[in-house]
Amino acid sequence: MNLTENLNWRYATKAMTGAIVPQEKVNAIINATLLCPTSSGLQPFEIILISNKELKNKVLPIAMNQVVITQSSHLMVFAAWDSYTIARINHHFEYLNKERNMPNSTTDDFRKVNIEMFTKLTKEQQFAHTAKQSYIGLGFALIAAATEQIDSTPMEGFNPEELDTLLELNKKGLKSTAILALGYRDVDKDWLVKLKKVRKQLSEFVTEMK
Amino acid sequence: MNLTENLNWRYATKAMTGAIVPQEKVNAIINATLLCPTSSGLQPFEIILISNKELKNKVLPIAMNQVVITQSSHLMVFAAWDSYTIARINHHFEYLNKERNMPNSTTDDFRKVNIEMFTKLTKEQQFAHTAKQSYIGLGFALIAAATEQIDSTPMEGFNPEELDTLLELNKKGLKSTAILALGYRDVDKDWLVKLKKVRKQLSEFVTEMK
Repeated sequence: MNLTENLNWRYATKAMTGAIVPQEKVNAIINATLLCPTSSGLQPFEIILISNKELKNKVLPIAMNQVVITQSSHLMVFAAWDSYTIARINHHFEYLNKERNMPNSTTDDFRKVNIEMFTKLTKEQQFAHTAKQSYIGLGFALIAAATEQIDSTPMEGFNPEELDTLLELNKKGLKSTAILALGYRDVDKDWLVKLKKVRKQLSEFVTEMK
Repeated sequence: MNLTENLNWRYATKAMTGAIVPQEKVNAIINATLLCPTSSGLQPFEIILISNKELKNKVLPIAMNQVVITQSSHLMVFAAWDSYTIARINHHFEYLNKERNMPNSTTDDFRKVNIEMFTKLTKEQQFAHTAKQSYIGLGFALIAAATEQIDSTPMEGFNPEELDTLLELNKKGLKSTAILALGYRDVDKDWLVKLKKVRKQLSEFVTEMK
């Protein structure tokens, strides 16, 4: 299937069978997510990948008891940096230059611009920014899953503070932003799979300035 | 090429040739962006698609004089709702039910939940939320462009207030969140195309909970 067919095939799956997604398909989805671009390349988010059943049972009440939490094969929890720090920004550029066999001074000006630009924001603005970057990754993960013919459910309907506590994200300076459940649609039990996919009319979506 | 190959092929293009992207490829990118999922399906963002040269010249100084602004074929400006309103939410559900040939009462409970959930947020929180949704769309547009072998440059480095004024987005209750320039890489003039694409090590990106 081509991209358009994959995107029309995917939908926010509301019931899953519990079948396990093969490791190589999970890896493909993770690797695609890793390849998403982010602001200045800082990659200010991580993935917590949950396949443990007991842990999924604990996530369930935190996520409004949405059944796909426990019917899924894996949960990808998107967790963004709670803030930009000088240490995090320095670490990124040191690693980047090492990987490119370039002296660390190469990116000094750009590194300083980033430190100034991000650390002057309020903590709330910093997290709003890192959270947005994680949503580019969410977009990549959604398409990668569809490309692998793996069903997925993107979810914001959870209590982020409780999830952060459960997963001990605070210790890592992270905050959860979204969950993507991966698995296989249960066609007989899913009320949404039968309904027409509806998107805005193109005229309400795009304004052309030629 | 498969998805992984396309994602490794793409990079934030720093110099473009000025060649024009065929309309059918632009359409494919726009249509893929339209198919991205959003919170409750509300699609709280739009695309301003700029191919007009004079207008690109006016965007240039607003976007830190990044040369791809004027070297691009098209600019996709992502513009998110400045806020959630009862009218916007009602409009979505009315349209949804009409498209599905269902009575408007079908979604009454869910519609009311959405109105309560979103309108109780501060205006700043509402825009932070709509902006995030537009970044799922940005992820979709980035992959769709790569799939069409069209180069692209995602940009946050612009003055959003000035761009909103130039494009009269305020009148539509929109605020710009990102620009994606579409075009063709100028290999001889692009300093980034020659450098290794670097991403975090997998061990720094994913934490598995088995």
